[in-house]
Amino acid sequence: MKSKLPDIKETIFTTMNRASLEANAINLSQGFPGFQPDSRLRDLIAHFTQNGSNQYAPMMGIPALREAMSLKTEKCQGVKTDMDSEWTIVSGATQAVFSAVTAVVETGDEVIVLEPAFDSYVPAILLNGGIPIHVPLSLKDFSPDWDLIREKVSNKTKLIIVNTPHNPSGYVWTKNDLEELASLVEEFGLFVVSDEVYEHIIFDGREHYSLLSHPVLRQRTFVCGSFGKTFHITGWKIGFCVAIPELTVEFRKIHQYVTFTTVRPAQHALAEYLKLETYLGLPDFYEKKRNLFTDGLENSSLEFEPAQGSFFQQAQYGHLSQMPDRELALKMTRELKVACIPVSSFYADGSDHKIIRFCFAKNDDELIEATSRLENLD
Amino acid sequence: MKSKLPDIKETIFTTMNRASLEANAINLSQGFPGFQPDSRLRDLIAHFTQNGSNQYAPMMGIPALREAMSLKTEKCQGVKTDMDSEWTIVSGATQAVFSAVTAVVETGDEVIVLEPAFDSYVPAILLNGGIPIHVPLSLKDFSPDWDLIREKVSNKTKLIIVNTPHNPSGYVWTKNDLEELASLVEEFGLFVVSDEVYEHIIFDGREHYSLLSHPVLRQRTFVCGSFGKTFHITGWKIGFCVAIPELTVEFRKIHQYVTFTTVRPAQHALAEYLKLETYLGLPDFYEKKRNLFTDGLENSSLEFEPAQGSFFQQAQYGHLSQMPDRELALKMTRELKVACIPVSSFYADGSDHKIIRFCFAKNDDELIEATSRLENLD
Ligand SMILES: CSCCC(=O)C(=O)O
Ligand SMILES: CSCCC(=O)C(=O)O
Repeated sequence: MKSKLPDIKETIFTTMNRASLEANAINLSQGFPGFQPDSRLRDLIAHFTQNGSNQYAPMMGIPALREAMSLKTEKCQGVKTDMDSEWTIVSGATQAVFSAVTAVVETGDEVIVLEPAFDSYVPAILLNGGIPIHVPLSLKDFSPDWDLIREKVSNKTKLIIVNTPHNPSGYVWTKNDLEELASLVEEFGLFVVSDEVYEHIIFDGREHYSLLSHPVLRQRTFVCGSFGKTFHITGWKIGFCVAIPELTVEFRKIHQYVTFTTVRPAQHALAEYLKLETYLGLPDFYEKKRNLFTDGLENSSLEFEPAQGSFFQQAQYGHLSQMPDRELALKMTRELKVACIPVSSFYADGSDHKIIRFCFAKNDDELIEATSRLENLD
Repeated sequence: MKSKLPDIKETIFTTMNRASLEANAINLSQGFPGFQPDSRLRDLIAHFTQNGSNQYAPMMGIPALREAMSLKTEKCQGVKTDMDSEWTIVSGATQAVFSAVTAVVETGDEVIVLEPAFDSYVPAILLNGGIPIHVPLSLKDFSPDWDLIREKVSNKTKLIIVNTPHNPSGYVWTKNDLEELASLVEEFGLFVVSDEVYEHIIFDGREHYSLLSHPVLRQRTFVCGSFGKTFHITGWKIGFCVAIPELTVEFRKIHQYVTFTTVRPAQHALAEYLKLETYLGLPDFYEKKRNLFTDGLENSSLEFEPAQGSFFQQAQYGHLSQMPDRELALKMTRELKVACIPVSSFYADGSDHKIIRFCFAKNDDELIEATSRLENLD
């Protein structure tokens, strides 16, 4: 059978998870919490599977959850959104991004992808006949290079995909980044898909500026988010898309034929749980983990800047070895028993800057043990 | 914003659910059980959310569930399948169908759709640049009209979408239907997407012949199924696709960028629950409900043939009124307080044969009350 995605091999997440399992390593590769969600949330989901409806939720999600998200967004971002015409609950942020890209991109449309980029963006573009235009982020701090981006935007550009806080680098977009993007959006009439799944994981007193908070971007952006990352439930596969009504109408047309609706008991549980506002403690919770991990990493020969956000920490090894990063990641997994992700897999052309990514959403003892193992890297 | 699906309006399911709610009617419109799943299954999901992993499942689904499904398929269909290379667990059968269509269909490919057809097939084709070729099923019993289908198949045809037991008619494909399809598949090298979500809901001693069970079709078919329909958990949004390895490789490439993976605790719960083989009692369970419903319907002036399978019962009213079926369905909802689905919404061109569809996956008292209300139809 002819492949629609001939260049797609196994994802790096599958490869590294398997390698980690085989080597019995500490798995800091794929980004997921190594601990359970709050027992109150687990009690709520048990309650709703026992006593609530186990049948289809409404296509756009249950009203209570859309209302809770609208309230939270006003509180966190100072942005008013309409729960009925602007929010859609979907089966994870990957589905949100896929559906938003599908709503916008037609054959021949160019789409700006800032690299390194999460691995689902490009296939979503290709499956819709779009042409990904790759623009590297600055290697210094992984900020967008606006001169470079301006060079690549043209009248053929339909969409730009944005990710803040950024996976894998942790870079957090500044107000200035939003202004730069807004001026491009206005000049070229671009649409934006903004992957903000790490919105609550942000450090050192920084603020997350959702693209919703900018009046120009608000009109053109599909903001995609994840309950999995915020509440330690990546396995529940529940996320959302928020956008102005005109964009949401088109988003929902895609959503309703991609998955139709999203797991119901989880929606009820989350609607209740959001009232507890536990997400407000998330920056602290993860900042401690980042500090624990980077404190340990100081004792290794890896080089790094502490992540500004997300639950990932990048590290450079180019001064130690010129081994391809994929090879190094597999060797580290087998020999040091610490699994990570080679960042070359976040570049379409496999550009290898000798950078690896660790996920620090793990128990403290695992992080301590992992960094002590990494001391043996040479 | 320009629409990729300009002709798509609100789904009929959303329209009729809302009308039903507003009228406080008995809702026999959208197909979902009006009762809870087995308490053992609810206990299992509560157990696994409390004590199991709440993080990402593997992309193709957890091994225990794929193994259980492979065993079940050998038992029910007498077909051996490989749990690792042939099974993928996805976020509902709608996602399975969407992903399979996306794996196959390219710009300009023709796809045969037998009408009346479930409403997600055509948008999936259109979003991939395909051209739906609509072929009506026989209005007598909703069997495929093989002469008509042969007329429409050509070298431009890439795929045919099949649905047995059929929604909305309940028609169950015969061995002869499989043979007819197989000869077309061989002659034209077609692929097949087979929506078999009602595989276990089949009456009067009939057998479900999965397309997996035919050696020719086995090589070319993506079989899509649903745990929601079989275990009364439509709100859990979990389904599967099974196909030979060569097709599964391409299916998974799409799946991994559409949703990436599917809700984990439900996978563990279902893997355990499948051991109880409760699906073996499903034909009886639903045949009683069909009989209860059709017994009541005898007292109305509607005409019908008892459904062969699925949890839907169609009925004709053309001898009573020439009102458009959509209008009749809304009027019946408001005045008789029984909601149904107008079958014209299952035809791309809105062909109205004065047929309405009732879902009888409801509690017995509701079915009795609904049919007694329908006695007042004139
Ligand atoms: C689809 S992999 C999910 C985890 C993740 O976002 C990552 O590891 O980058
Ligand atoms: C996506 S609507 C789900 C129920 C169903 O299959 C139907 O009512 O036809």
